[in-house]
Amino acid sequence: VNGSAGAPAKRQRSDGQRSRAAILDAAAALSTVEGLDGLSIGTLATHVGMSKSGLFAHFRTKEELQIATVAVANEIVNDQVVLPALRLPTPAGRLLALCENFLAYAQNTYPGGCFFASAAADLSVRPSALRDLIARYHRDWMDDLTKLVAEAQADGAVDPDENADQIAFELNSYLRLANSEFVLTGDQAAIERGRQAVKHRLGLAASR
Amino acid sequence: VNGSAGAPAKRQRSDGQRSRAAILDAAAALSTVEGLDGLSIGTLATHVGMSKSGLFAHFRTKEELQIATVAVANEIVNDQVVLPALRLPTPAGRLLALCENFLAYAQNTYPGGCFFASAAADLSVRPSALRDLIARYHRDWMDDLTKLVAEAQADGAVDPDENADQIAFELNSYLRLANSEFVLTGDQAAIERGRQAVKHRLGLAASR
Repeated sequence: VNGSAGAPAKRQRSDGQRSRAAILDAAAALSTVEGLDGLSIGTLATHVGMSKSGLFAHFRTKEELQIATVAVANEIVNDQVVLPALRLPTPAGRLLALCENFLAYAQNTYPGGCFFASAAADLSVRPSALRDLIARYHRDWMDDLTKLVAEAQADGAVDPDENADQIAFELNSYLRLANSEFVLTGDQAAIERGRQAVKHRLGLAASR
Repeated sequence: VNGSAGAPAKRQRSDGQRSRAAILDAAAALSTVEGLDGLSIGTLATHVGMSKSGLFAHFRTKEELQIATVAVANEIVNDQVVLPALRLPTPAGRLLALCENFLAYAQNTYPGGCFFASAAADLSVRPSALRDLIARYHRDWMDDLTKLVAEAQADGAVDPDENADQIAFELNSYLRLANSEFVLTGDQAAIERGRQAVKHRLGLAASR
């Protein structure tokens, strides 16, 4: 490793990585349509036009594929939703941007809307390592929202008498219903309702 | 028909109806766990301990089974959520009861929470008659909520300057996130957050 195998091996590894990334991008998109549980090496191979044995070179089991897909979807959420919001100067600005970025991601990134909302709906009842993983991402997301609300309170932008957990729950509920109504109906009005609800709630929570 | 076939035939028909009802109750519960799309005559036969041919006597295709299951789940929602709320005297009382009844139903009725939330998540992207049917029930539910908000406005209990569609969206979002977080985590706190959010929103919307 460390490049000591020389240029050809290096190029080969890099092709393999590109191919792996392309497979996982397709897997994330497909699982918002077919369900994360419906994601099998066979279905995915058909979808990306590879042989099953070609895919087996990357992922030996369905669970390994699913877990790698979740990690890639999480990177997408970080890149499109979380990191651009966290770059803003104030906690209140970050909180609003996090919500708005989520709505844009829900509308534009995957055919079945938010990857994690889709995965939770698909996996929510069957106990499994994958279900625990998805539940953890949901908890982390709620924790991020709650932390931003608390920071906006400490910063004087949000009323300190409000309950940060409750505001985070309400904001997340607008995001999630906007996502699921948009996916169900294809009507962009659902995204706009979500955006209005977020602005209205943040307006109410603003320090008077 | 009309009982003219005599007592034995009547009892036989009534047994058949009881059996059909029991099958559909099991189908509705199972589909909140396995997905409405995962509901096949084979899976259901295993689950209720009947032969596949016994089930085929009731439902000839998977789609026929799915559509009958949706109708039964809708009756449950009517019986547990809608009708008890509509019996109350004031529009504001009906609106609050509709939300609270939904939360109790989401928590207690099916292993995978609200049947229609589960079905929407499972079916939302694939075009089909079933998807259109589920989308229609979601639209009807939102219309019921919106109509109650408008009636509460006409009755003087809710501020007429608020937008009824927007309030209905926000109330429904609390109900849906409470349902999905409860299903994902099993934590009753999610139901309580939903209840608080509904009360808070209705308090804000109250005429001043």
